Amino acid sequence: MQPVNVGLLGLGTVGAGAVNLLERNGVEIARRAGREIRVVRAAVRNPDKTRECATSGIEIGTDCNAVVTDPNIDVVIELIGGDTQAYDLVMAAIANGKHVVTANKHLIALHGNEIFAAADEAGVVVSFEAAVAGGIPIIKAMRESLAANHIEWVAGIINGTGNFILSQMIFEDQSFEDALADAQRLGFAEADPTFDVEGIDAAHKLAIIGAIAFGIPLSFDKIFTQGIRDIDSVDIEYCAELGYRIKHLGIARRGDNGVEMRVHPTLVSQKALLANVEGEKNAIMVYGDAVGPTVYYGAGAGAGPTASSVVADLIDTVRIMSIDPKGRVPHLAFQPDEITDEPIVGSDDFVCGHYFRVQVADQIGVMAEITRALADQQIGIEAILQKDPPTEEDDARVMIVTKAAREGQLMKVLDHIRSLPYAREGIVHMRVAQFED
Amino acid sequence: MQPVNVGLLGLGTVGAGAVNLLERNGVEIARRAGREIRVVRAAVRNPDKTRECATSGIEIGTDCNAVVTDPNIDVVIELIGGDTQAYDLVMAAIANGKHVVTANKHLIALHGNEIFAAADEAGVVVSFEAAVAGGIPIIKAMRESLAANHIEWVAGIINGTGNFILSQMIFEDQSFEDALADAQRLGFAEADPTFDVEGIDAAHKLAIIGAIAFGIPLSFDKIFTQGIRDIDSVDIEYCAELGYRIKHLGIARRGDNGVEMRVHPTLVSQKALLANVEGEKNAIMVYGDAVGPTVYYGAGAGAGPTASSVVADLIDTVRIMSIDPKGRVPHLAFQPDEITDEPIVGSDDFVCGHYFRVQVADQIGVMAEITRALADQQIGIEAILQKDPPTEEDDARVMIVTKAAREGQLMKVLDHIRSLPYAREGIVHMRVAQFED
Repeated sequence: MQPVNVGLLGLGTVGAGAVNLLERNGVEIARRAGREIRVVRAAVRNPDKTRECATSGIEIGTDCNAVVTDPNIDVVIELIGGDTQAYDLVMAAIANGKHVVTANKHLIALHGNEIFAAADEAGVVVSFEAAVAGGIPIIKAMRESLAANHIEWVAGIINGTGNFILSQMIFEDQSFEDALADAQRLGFAEADPTFDVEGIDAAHKLAIIGAIAFGIPLSFDKIFTQGIRDIDSVDIEYCAELGYRIKHLGIARRGDNGVEMRVHPTLVSQKALLANVEGEKNAIMVYGDAVGPTVYYGAGAGAGPTASSVVADLIDTVRIMSIDPKGRVPHLAFQPDEITDEPIVGSDDFVCGHYFRVQVADQIGVMAEITRALADQQIGIEAILQKDPPTEEDDARVMIVTKAAREGQLMKVLDHIRSLPYAREGIVHMRVAQFED
Repeated sequence: MQPVNVGLLGLGTVGAGAVNLLERNGVEIARRAGREIRVVRAAVRNPDKTRECATSGIEIGTDCNAVVTDPNIDVVIELIGGDTQAYDLVMAAIANGKHVVTANKHLIALHGNEIFAAADEAGVVVSFEAAVAGGIPIIKAMRESLAANHIEWVAGIINGTGNFILSQMIFEDQSFEDALADAQRLGFAEADPTFDVEGIDAAHKLAIIGAIAFGIPLSFDKIFTQGIRDIDSVDIEYCAELGYRIKHLGIARRGDNGVEMRVHPTLVSQKALLANVEGEKNAIMVYGDAVGPTVYYGAGAGAGPTASSVVADLIDTVRIMSIDPKGRVPHLAFQPDEITDEPIVGSDDFVCGHYFRVQVADQIGVMAEITRALADQQIGIEAILQKDPPTEEDDARVMIVTKAAREGQLMKVLDHIRSLPYAREGIVHMRVAQFED
């Protein structure tokens, strides 16, 4: 059969990684795919820049449109990132009958619904395994391997930068700022770390995970998102005493009133597998009604792991385009006309355990009042820790972990505590993950 | 589109699990697969037996041949186990143009090469995700998601019974016999546990893993296989002091002289993810040159998890049969004419760390002689532990963990030690896993 011709939009770290991989393992990949795959063209911003890959045989220019309209190209790989130019180019590629592979979580989370509709209309395949958790095949696992399951929840460490920072804070006693600086020095964090530390990158990925898990449209703007910037090392310490580690998780969960979609710092039992995923690694736990819990672990970023997923998508595309692209696995797991818009609940309806830290004047009856407030809202207590604060000798710090409770109820308790005369300002609140390995 | 009609061979625990799953999640499964899937016929040994699933709409008889030749049936699910009758029936189903899904590792490990050749010839699909690690999608991960990688090694806990027994021995201080009895009482082990405790079941699975990882034919009879029956609790204790846990692993690894395929008790660093997989759970680590290490964790057996994989295979089959079965992913990952028969090495050529325990008379110069023997074979030492044995006061027990070494070299050392006048009989030897998370 004729080789498959690939055009690249962008030839930075991941693009060069893909070219290197297709070169290094080209024979082995053709042994699997049944066809040779070759990169014939690439559009880049600066054609004079030195590339991290061999470029012989690749026509390099600056015109992205020339790539997406090139009649000789079968598959376009989009690696320029962002959601504006990338969107226009992907839509143009689709309109020109090209299959598309992308690692762009931002693009898919925000515009996937339109992109997939256009691809279905045009009879082409858009693949995006690398958009979530880099080299970990979580899209395929949920979309195909767990297709027999009613998926009940997914919880994952899906931002390597954030996980690296938390690991440094926990094990190296670093402050958030120092850990972030280290992450930037080691290349795990961008110069502008906003998307990583504010949880936006994780929310992009969670939007994709939630859609595939539950058969709902991509709903990035409905995701509750909290970053890691405000995590205080004192809570890391108290949580450790209580048997937990703080992880930044993306959680998609079916609740009684709708789907919970949330990204936030989370207390995870030290014994749980997810608690022990360190550094820049990613891991996702998926709970299906038939299979129970399954976990997928690996590198969530980097040239090699991301290229691994990009080229796997390319091989899948080559296989299906060689027979009938209409036989592709549905982009969002469910057939397009079977995607239903289930309600996504607000934070008051989240159901989980809660951790809170409150500082109070150390008086008789304070603990009685706090625990009474919890009881009044029918909230059970999992653990209590009381400590002296480092200064203010007449104060006490109280840390409580509750059993699973509706967050709206817990907020009433915290409001009540805030109103008490002996409560100091600034209650810290975090959620607790409840899942068995 | 017309519903897909499925015929079952066997309606025991897993068969009933699949029927229940298709019933419970039937609407959701059709939303994903694009077609309704229904079980219309089943062949069982005893039609009067009570089933663990609803059977209305299923024609139940005793004639397996009637199922595999039924012109109304599109896909046959083989769940009778073993390698004789199952082989004849699967070959007959293929000859009759049926697609086949099976959970039978024994069958695939021993007869997969012929079965896949017949399926390729007939243009039908044979799927077997459930044959390895139950509900964990390891076949699909290696065959599709990691298809861009040169896979360097795979190491896994792929027998839940054995892992349960080892966990009991480690954490509950049980003897092997007591732990096995517990496993049988809890339904994790068969009445005849030979396949599990002797490593044969794990070797069946490793044959499949190795073929898919390396593009070689299924080679069950070349796998080096050691069970867990001879593990002494004293070694569990000493290994723990040295920082290791003993796990029963299946390892497929590219070495300099060929492929290593081995199933044996293995020392794993306590910090490694695989060391912390407990009870009847399975986990597989795959190392690809691009992606690095990835891990897949979940339930390796049981009605629900196994049915999860069986029905996932069924959905994949339904998707591809609806367009062109010839577009299926190759059964063993590589195109049939691209499978090459690489040499599989004997144990002398295994390269790994080694643990050995030897009992010696407690004399001056003994340790010097043992360590000299290692040095003469160019084997480095990772750790040494010396203990008094519980009895024989004038003896000492020496436990050594070596750095990676060719096993043939290590055997020369052990032979030399055996020949020394002060060495007692019975050197214990185990291999050490070397992999980063």
